[in-house]
Amino acid sequence: MANAQIIAIGSEMLTPEKVDTNSLFLTRELNNLGIAVAGKRVVGDTREEIAEAIQQCLARAEVVIVSGGLGPTEDDLTRDGAALALGRELRFHEEVLAGIAARLRKFNRTMTERNRRQAFILEGARVLANPNGTAPGQVIETGGKLLFLLPGPPRELEPMVREHCVPIWSGFFPPRVLRTFTFRIARMPESEVDERAAPIYTKFTNPETTILAAAGDITLQFRAVAETEDEASRLLAAVADPIRNELGPRIYSEDGSSLESTLARHLLARGQTMAVAESCTAGMLASRLAGVPGVSKVFLGGFVVYTNEMKVKLTGVDATLIEQHSAVSEEVALALAAETRDRTGADFAVSITGYAGPDGGTTKDPIGTAYVGIATPDRLFAERLSFPGDRERIRRFTTQWALDILRVEVLRFPALPACGDLQ
Amino acid sequence: MANAQIIAIGSEMLTPEKVDTNSLFLTRELNNLGIAVAGKRVVGDTREEIAEAIQQCLARAEVVIVSGGLGPTEDDLTRDGAALALGRELRFHEEVLAGIAARLRKFNRTMTERNRRQAFILEGARVLANPNGTAPGQVIETGGKLLFLLPGPPRELEPMVREHCVPIWSGFFPPRVLRTFTFRIARMPESEVDERAAPIYTKFTNPETTILAAAGDITLQFRAVAETEDEASRLLAAVADPIRNELGPRIYSEDGSSLESTLARHLLARGQTMAVAESCTAGMLASRLAGVPGVSKVFLGGFVVYTNEMKVKLTGVDATLIEQHSAVSEEVALALAAETRDRTGADFAVSITGYAGPDGGTTKDPIGTAYVGIATPDRLFAERLSFPGDRERIRRFTTQWALDILRVEVLRFPALPACGDLQ
Repeated sequence: MANAQIIAIGSEMLTPEKVDTNSLFLTRELNNLGIAVAGKRVVGDTREEIAEAIQQCLARAEVVIVSGGLGPTEDDLTRDGAALALGRELRFHEEVLAGIAARLRKFNRTMTERNRRQAFILEGARVLANPNGTAPGQVIETGGKLLFLLPGPPRELEPMVREHCVPIWSGFFPPRVLRTFTFRIARMPESEVDERAAPIYTKFTNPETTILAAAGDITLQFRAVAETEDEASRLLAAVADPIRNELGPRIYSEDGSSLESTLARHLLARGQTMAVAESCTAGMLASRLAGVPGVSKVFLGGFVVYTNEMKVKLTGVDATLIEQHSAVSEEVALALAAETRDRTGADFAVSITGYAGPDGGTTKDPIGTAYVGIATPDRLFAERLSFPGDRERIRRFTTQWALDILRVEVLRFPALPACGDLQ
Repeated sequence: MANAQIIAIGSEMLTPEKVDTNSLFLTRELNNLGIAVAGKRVVGDTREEIAEAIQQCLARAEVVIVSGGLGPTEDDLTRDGAALALGRELRFHEEVLAGIAARLRKFNRTMTERNRRQAFILEGARVLANPNGTAPGQVIETGGKLLFLLPGPPRELEPMVREHCVPIWSGFFPPRVLRTFTFRIARMPESEVDERAAPIYTKFTNPETTILAAAGDITLQFRAVAETEDEASRLLAAVADPIRNELGPRIYSEDGSSLESTLARHLLARGQTMAVAESCTAGMLASRLAGVPGVSKVFLGGFVVYTNEMKVKLTGVDATLIEQHSAVSEEVALALAAETRDRTGADFAVSITGYAGPDGGTTKDPIGTAYVGIATPDRLFAERLSFPGDRERIRRFTTQWALDILRVEVLRFPALPACGDLQ
């Protein structure tokens, strides 16, 4: 498999405000042809640093792509850096300057002395036309490798890549198919997912496996490179099948879908609805559900009962229950879920009550403790949970657990034959 | 001025989906001490490539910061890469493992064999405690330069940088006074803020001015470098005072506080409370408020009324009102706010009803239209809003407007002499 390195030139990308995004577009286009990106970097507007980066990257990869620093100003130094790196001259091209002049005339702008800088091309390089700006791109073959100099603005770079670079890449490298497959897993720490999956995936270098971890939400991604679609599918199945057997029902989606949209689809497939009552998460669970387009077919709404008074007033939980057991208790979680199911008429209700910190908590139930109550058409139960982290993270963890506990519960009911789509 | 290089480790950041953002936070913290970032890179999970990147960066900069790759899994190779780069051994630290074990026990998780990996420390390195995760950081002085290995997750990296790295950097490099001042502005587009503020701030190069834009939330930040605190304050006032006069009451905070915590403080200062009823935003407003520690003193809770049925059932809005005017209307927004104030007993109630898309909308009220209803101790009114963008962005915009409309309304009431703190 061929490797690429991407270099973004520009001191503004070394400030706290701006990030290089051209590399994301370039990575997508390269991956489509089975070319992996092995590294990327941001370099300031300094000739020596640009030259050093190009040399270091050419030592590592078959394709090196430099974006930015091709403008007309004095701190546009990519051309000079590349010349220094390769030990080649820059040659003035009269016809390139004529093209720049024609473009500027078209927009009633005058050419300045500075624009001449943009007509200097590396000795032996091919010019890549830029219909969307004055800076032409350049490509040069050096030691069996390809070095591209591309303009920085995405609206100039992107068309140039599609029109010129992609055909060059596909001619230079044997065509490959790159396919990915994804498992998403809730309620299992990254270390446990890895301990169970690593003995399987480490046997394979193709597909390559990546683990991404968010709060209670682990993504396992497999990336296979092959000569045909069929071979890619076979390669992916070789690692995905045994991992599916190992992790079983903790895997909630195999198509990249979020936990909330997976739950919504399971409810829709059963013609069922849900509602919520949230204390410490105070709408975060509802808001996550509402992020799924079309979710109003299965999600009705519910209560934000942030204070004890609201738990009594809005959902009708018995005040003495709160006095006896405290608001953060199994008893109150159960009552909140049951009352919410009752008052909304939903098939399923979820309740959340807990201590997100920084205040609150008891010896028995310290900060990070939450109770999730679930009311279904045929039962009522609660789970006690315990999470590390700050307020935001505890709330996020709790909604994640609540969604996944309900997902497993909904799957106990049979799906209906035809139920339509969320949208 | 000292230079830093930043290396982010992780193959996931070499995919088309994910970009390194830790470097933005690191750059801000480094710049605060007058240390410039001269370059940054992303390297995959390969020991040799990590080692090479560290060597190349140490050759260029006084501080090299590596983030990520300190987890417990087999593809966490930063420790090994650094050892290879420096030609030093990794040493197992029993007390580091004991700390990891204690942390896992606290959250009822079992330590696995893999966690031992995280207790290996570079010979001669100092351990940086990680109260938010299992991976400790490391710092080592080598050839008069500093190499840091930091965990990848921002909620682990950021506190570690603030607590440990910043003091080390300030001890290592000659101190300068760098001070910032911030205005936050709601309900005004970035272009308008800039049009009104630029004629003032462009007159100054010190302080430097930065504009950050989120949905309906603009931050103007001024950064002054000086030899003394007094001089920094004078420099900041020279630009901030005229901009305050220009933007007036659209500035909602001058200490970096979020809009929701500003609103909460205004309510607390008046001994007043609030509640919500949300349709399209479905808990997002409530959840934003609940993100403020101690907010239960002023925020009671409310209703998520995602379907029409729930608007009638939970808040008691007249069903014929919805039939006559549709759920997305001024009339329904007013009724929702009034009923919510009534049922919860809060001093203020906010309601939101709108079309967030991708379905819904009418010719009169297309997707992106929302009505915000406000019920106060002495009046009831609604505003019609209209936003561009996708579902998530429309919902975010709407909550922002609702919070700021209420903020201005709360300020009509006089503050009380003594009212305590949120926490």
